[in-house]
Amino acid sequence: MQSAHARRLVSLLSRLPGVGEKTAQRYLLFLLTAERELSDDLGRELSFLREHLVPCARCGNIAEVVGSGPSLCDICTDNKRDSRILCIVARVHDLISIERAGSMRGRYFVLGKLLSPLEGVGPEDLPIAALVARVREEKVEEVIVATPPSVDGEATALLIKRELGGTGVAISRIASGV
Amino acid sequence: MQSAHARRLVSLLSRLPGVGEKTAQRYLLFLLTAERELSDDLGRELSFLREHLVPCARCGNIAEVVGSGPSLCDICTDNKRDSRILCIVARVHDLISIERAGSMRGRYFVLGKLLSPLEGVGPEDLPIAALVARVREEKVEEVIVATPPSVDGEATALLIKRELGGTGVAISRIASGV
Repeated sequence: MQSAHARRLVSLLSRLPGVGEKTAQRYLLFLLTAERELSDDLGRELSFLREHLVPCARCGNIAEVVGSGPSLCDICTDNKRDSRILCIVARVHDLISIERAGSMRGRYFVLGKLLSPLEGVGPEDLPIAALVARVREEKVEEVIVATPPSVDGEATALLIKRELGGTGVAISRIASGV
Repeated sequence: MQSAHARRLVSLLSRLPGVGEKTAQRYLLFLLTAERELSDDLGRELSFLREHLVPCARCGNIAEVVGSGPSLCDICTDNKRDSRILCIVARVHDLISIERAGSMRGRYFVLGKLLSPLEGVGPEDLPIAALVARVREEKVEEVIVATPPSVDGEATALLIKRELGGTGVAISRIASGV
């Protein structure tokens, strides 16, 4: 594929997770032969993606931008959720998995990353202060740490347990495999 | 994921070949956390995709739009190609595979589809007239039919053989597995 535009689009698509050059090429050929609407609509949605969707100002989940105030996600604005229970996850992906399981009545806190000495992520890179402030302000009674059962996930869970020690909140670790 | 924008983007991405809802969601989460440039650039390239890239007016390969005349692909404008040899393929994808193998010195003709009674594709839906005209006008001496070794591919190869019978061109079938 020698066209500069084709090469550029293939190289951009190849940056998606799990997508190599061949898959990107397959996407491009499909988009070139599908109805024109599909590439146009995809182009528009992607161009405005970051204007429409932002991290929730309270928990880090995906939130839709509405008006000019801080954007909150559907879970944070849902009054039926039990604000005394807070589930701590590494990524939005984990939040979606837990929501899909359907048994979490509380709210979430997305860390965004895990402690990782190998990748140079230290305690100061995690939003621990925001987490402690939220636990105090919202009078959280129970924290469920749902970081993954990896070395980094366990280290992060230990850090959270230590940092939340002074708040008197009950801390549990979610069963692994979730 | 309850945001209307997120749902819409996931549903558009799910239309890509081999992409289900979960993969689409993974792409979305990645785009939301990657540098903003990526989603912006992808959005722009996709929005203008159909203005930049069109089927080659002569062979059906991907061609870049340059100026206002009919757009020809790199292979059709390459003078080093042997115009006496014409390779007939079902899709651009097949053309790319054959180009990658690197042994085709001739040019191509992309059918776009195969005969398929089950899907209601008959001889009148294939660009046979354009193919015959091209073989005559460009004084093609050898046609290589590289349709896939499926029932539809074989039926299409037979149809092409019959329709090109009157032109006196030599017709061969590419070895299967290519």
